Amino acid sequence: MNIGMIGLGRMGANMAQRLLRGGHQIVGFDPQAAARKALEDKGAGSAPSLADLVAALPAPRTLWLMVPAGAPTDASLDTLLPLLGEGDTVIDGGNSFYKDTLRRAQRFGERGIAYIDCGTSGGIWGLDEGYSLMIGGDAAAVERLRPVFETLAPASDQGWSRVGPVGAGHFTKMVHNGIEYGLMQAYAEGFSILKHKTEFELDLHRIAEVWRHGSVVRSWLLDLTADALKKNPEMAGIAPYVPDSGEGRWTVDEAIELNVPTPVIAQSLIERLRSRDKESFADKLLSSMRNEFGGHPIARE
Amino acid sequence: MNIGMIGLGRMGANMAQRLLRGGHQIVGFDPQAAARKALEDKGAGSAPSLADLVAALPAPRTLWLMVPAGAPTDASLDTLLPLLGEGDTVIDGGNSFYKDTLRRAQRFGERGIAYIDCGTSGGIWGLDEGYSLMIGGDAAAVERLRPVFETLAPASDQGWSRVGPVGAGHFTKMVHNGIEYGLMQAYAEGFSILKHKTEFELDLHRIAEVWRHGSVVRSWLLDLTADALKKNPEMAGIAPYVPDSGEGRWTVDEAIELNVPTPVIAQSLIERLRSRDKESFADKLLSSMRNEFGGHPIARE
Amino acid sequence: MNIGMIGLGRMGANMAQRLLRGGHQIVGFDPQAAARKALEDKGAGSAPSLADLVAALPAPRTLWLMVPAGAPTDASLDTLLPLLGEGDTVIDGGNSFYKDTLRRAQRFGERGIAYIDCGTSGGIWGLDEGYSLMIGGDAAAVERLRPVFETLAPASDQGWSRVGPVGAGHFTKMVHNGIEYGLMQAYAEGFSILKHKTEFELDLHRIAEVWRHGSVVRSWLLDLTADALKKNPEMAGIAPYVPDSGEGRWTVDEAIELNVPTPVIAQSLIERLRSRDKESFADKLLSSMRNEFGGHPIARE
Amino acid sequence: MNIGMIGLGRMGANMAQRLLRGGHQIVGFDPQAAARKALEDKGAGSAPSLADLVAALPAPRTLWLMVPAGAPTDASLDTLLPLLGEGDTVIDGGNSFYKDTLRRAQRFGERGIAYIDCGTSGGIWGLDEGYSLMIGGDAAAVERLRPVFETLAPASDQGWSRVGPVGAGHFTKMVHNGIEYGLMQAYAEGFSILKHKTEFELDLHRIAEVWRHGSVVRSWLLDLTADALKKNPEMAGIAPYVPDSGEGRWTVDEAIELNVPTPVIAQSLIERLRSRDKESFADKLLSSMRNEFGGHPIARE
Repeated sequence: MNIGMIGLGRMGANMAQRLLRGGHQIVGFDPQAAARKALEDKGAGSAPSLADLVAALPAPRTLWLMVPAGAPTDASLDTLLPLLGEGDTVIDGGNSFYKDTLRRAQRFGERGIAYIDCGTSGGIWGLDEGYSLMIGGDAAAVERLRPVFETLAPASDQGWSRVGPVGAGHFTKMVHNGIEYGLMQAYAEGFSILKHKTEFELDLHRIAEVWRHGSVVRSWLLDLTADALKKNPEMAGIAPYVPDSGEGRWTVDEAIELNVPTPVIAQSLIERLRSRDKESFADKLLSSMRNEFGGHPIARE
Repeated sequence: MNIGMIGLGRMGANMAQRLLRGGHQIVGFDPQAAARKALEDKGAGSAPSLADLVAALPAPRTLWLMVPAGAPTDASLDTLLPLLGEGDTVIDGGNSFYKDTLRRAQRFGERGIAYIDCGTSGGIWGLDEGYSLMIGGDAAAVERLRPVFETLAPASDQGWSRVGPVGAGHFTKMVHNGIEYGLMQAYAEGFSILKHKTEFELDLHRIAEVWRHGSVVRSWLLDLTADALKKNPEMAGIAPYVPDSGEGRWTVDEAIELNVPTPVIAQSLIERLRSRDKESFADKLLSSMRNEFGGHPIARE
Repeated sequence: MNIGMIGLGRMGANMAQRLLRGGHQIVGFDPQAAARKALEDKGAGSAPSLADLVAALPAPRTLWLMVPAGAPTDASLDTLLPLLGEGDTVIDGGNSFYKDTLRRAQRFGERGIAYIDCGTSGGIWGLDEGYSLMIGGDAAAVERLRPVFETLAPASDQGWSRVGPVGAGHFTKMVHNGIEYGLMQAYAEGFSILKHKTEFELDLHRIAEVWRHGSVVRSWLLDLTADALKKNPEMAGIAPYVPDSGEGRWTVDEAIELNVPTPVIAQSLIERLRSRDKESFADKLLSSMRNEFGGHPIARE
Repeated sequence: MNIGMIGLGRMGANMAQRLLRGGHQIVGFDPQAAARKALEDKGAGSAPSLADLVAALPAPRTLWLMVPAGAPTDASLDTLLPLLGEGDTVIDGGNSFYKDTLRRAQRFGERGIAYIDCGTSGGIWGLDEGYSLMIGGDAAAVERLRPVFETLAPASDQGWSRVGPVGAGHFTKMVHNGIEYGLMQAYAEGFSILKHKTEFELDLHRIAEVWRHGSVVRSWLLDLTADALKKNPEMAGIAPYVPDSGEGRWTVDEAIELNVPTPVIAQSLIERLRSRDKESFADKLLSSMRNEFGGHPIARE
């Protein structure tokens, strides 16, 4: 199929490349000329603006956005809307909040433009291993794009599915990331216990390798953890500082809104906040309280 | 090798069978005659008592225990101790608390008997897929048993390792199970969110299948979860009641003793306790407090 | 001062009464005639509509809202806005979300109407003990109402303060309630431990009384808990079901937005959600997973 | 009454002084001569050894231990045991683990010596405000000491009680401290949110003062927090480092043993561990995992 790929960062460039490998025709757009050039070198076309991109595609047009969630996505969509028409399709493959997706789909739908949300998992490994795709939107519109999804997914019949109406894709991806936070935190805590049991002189990489084969905790994240422990067993030079990119927050907010208790996902998010709160006011106040009631000494900075 | 397998329950019987398939000579003991008979039918010998079992093995003898942790393990070991002698080896393949293992190893070591702890993961799937084995003990004693471990593990060179001195195997397995609790809870929370987002009418089994291929959260536990959701998508007839078998508790106690913060593993354990606390006194008291200060109505039973 | 009190439920009626006792002139409005009549019986005037209420007050008018947060508050404010004019003052004494307050204050401010938010704590005890008042708004407007605050608070110079610009009052009250959740949960857990230590046959009410005098955990909530335990030591007939009224959710959302880790407040909220999730899908799935990997039996409903 | 006070640290010296003020005869022992001298200056006798202390008391003797829990308490008791006889009474007023108390009481009971455990709360304020006393032991033995408890408690009939058989006092005190952790953490989190809402420029001390009067969260810990915030509103120079002295750990262990879910108390303890884990291996590993799967940059030290 002919696809216009918008956003040629780490994820977008890889996905365009996987589509090229699968025999699709790609025209790419990115504000960075270097990113466009890199894609051209792989056999795609490119366009210096969204208007040029739209002009370069045969109708009905298919545009795939891989743009940071929030304002950047809105900006691209605002530009696209007047350029597109009835029968065209926009797919948001980024990590948009599903409520934004519902709002945007409404706007495009009013003009006869199909709007599809595609939660995309797989990270930098997706180029070679395929992406897991959670797709929301009109069933016929999704079906029309079957060749694209079959190429992007790990196998033509595995790793992708329409999971519901528009919004359902990003909702499912959001929850996926919430789970991901919990899994990561569980491994991190476990390896931290092993690390601190110094008298056993445990080799964490070796243990990860043992667990990778036959154990209940084997997983792809464990494969990656084993790799990280092999390369840097002591985590030397790495700051104990863990960013988060939003989906975990949304998951917790949504769970609360739905009255679903999610203690572990919530706590996993909070641990990331905690990792960045190096001058915890709460801890300082706790230390002061202990001094107030019990005369316990206060550790000084 | 010649192995005396003590305890022919779900795990012990399967492990004996996998060893038989691998060409080892097995004599099994279990207090249940039916369990002994079942093993005999698969080509093993059996013994009606531990004394007979020991007598049936050529010296130096190798005895593998797959017995419930705690008192049953101690009872078996108490019986075995006077029957064994210098050069024999005892392997505890159950889920013993590592401090019990240290105590027991000391006792056997004083009589020249090698004591090895082998944390065993893989559940009922280990028979066909192999077990992940975390082994503690004297390096030479472990090396002598290499053929046994190579047979039990998924591949001769994968899924097993001596991870440290005696105790280290059970310690590592304990942490493995703590991680397992966290992973399970993360998935359970995520699917619960999906379940409660009724307007999207999400097909949880289908989503699990999508995630199994290419996503960051793919894992063996997810494979099993997909299977469970396929068989019973609504979890019909299943009580919201989750037992725990001890290793999670030990993990939390150990983490606290080591000053390692493990919020997610601790919370995963607490959620299991919570699932069984159907008449929560805490919740009743909270309801009463709300009534006391704010006049809020109390829900009645 | 002359005050128009809007909303004569549990909180509004008590506050009107405390103001009457303090020598203020009160005209009350409530859609329920019985509520208006009850207030009249205590010496206040009443009005059958908001328009009548506004007409009954001397300019510049002071209107105090004690109306449920959200839509009911917006409805009252929509009616009031065209009836009021430059120099009038509206105080929202309810549990509004502070972002709603910011929006509403903007709207009233554009018409020269002072808008004050007053977080109010004290529950049904405030009538006699006085209310704790966290006030946001223009300093001069707050100062003009000093006689009102001095009457409502426990003492003329204690228990009330302007804490910042408009919104700051409700923000502070929101956090107050978040803390309240945490305190309540801590007591509830502690008493639950005592309750389950059956061999000591602990008398929970007696222990609460001991703690009320001289202990580090003495508090007003403990006073109330002691009272609840005295009246119903076994919490007989009370369902383990704990509602929440919104502020806890906002607190958690805000904390996440501000990158402040609040594990205990978040968990306290989650425990309330959990108390109402009697058919936990998560727990059922956990039980299924255990069966899948380990063959553990599933408890049936 | 005649009391031998063993351990003249912060708590023991204050309690001895309060007993002196109440008209009791005190002989004190402490290995530090300066501590003995300080007590003598207040009107007590002192003894340079436990043997001298026992010799200085009229039979039946009453000995009150205020010694650090664990080995120091065992050391004192080991020395005392052969010095005492039938009819004497030992009270452990420290923070002993209740299982140690059960063991010790057994040993003393076998020799006809009454053993009483007295959980003591009140910190450095107890001297003037009185102590909250949770007492376990034989009812007649406790009754004999009524004059002592009436003096130590805030009022002769308030703030002290026999709560059950020996062990019950320390058990109750342990749970008290678990609750204390939860309360402290709830306040600390709440004030931390206020602190980070910079646009409102909230005065935390002032808010604490407002809350102290009439609010639902008023408590003695809040009084102390207000005091701490008054003295040092920015917590300047205080390290975000919070020790724990053991009772929180025991509470969590006990709750797990009793199958009582205590998420908030457990998390409060974990937060203290976290405050001391400045080079969190878990966080470093999380950062590495994010890099592994998503190519996210790693913050460097």
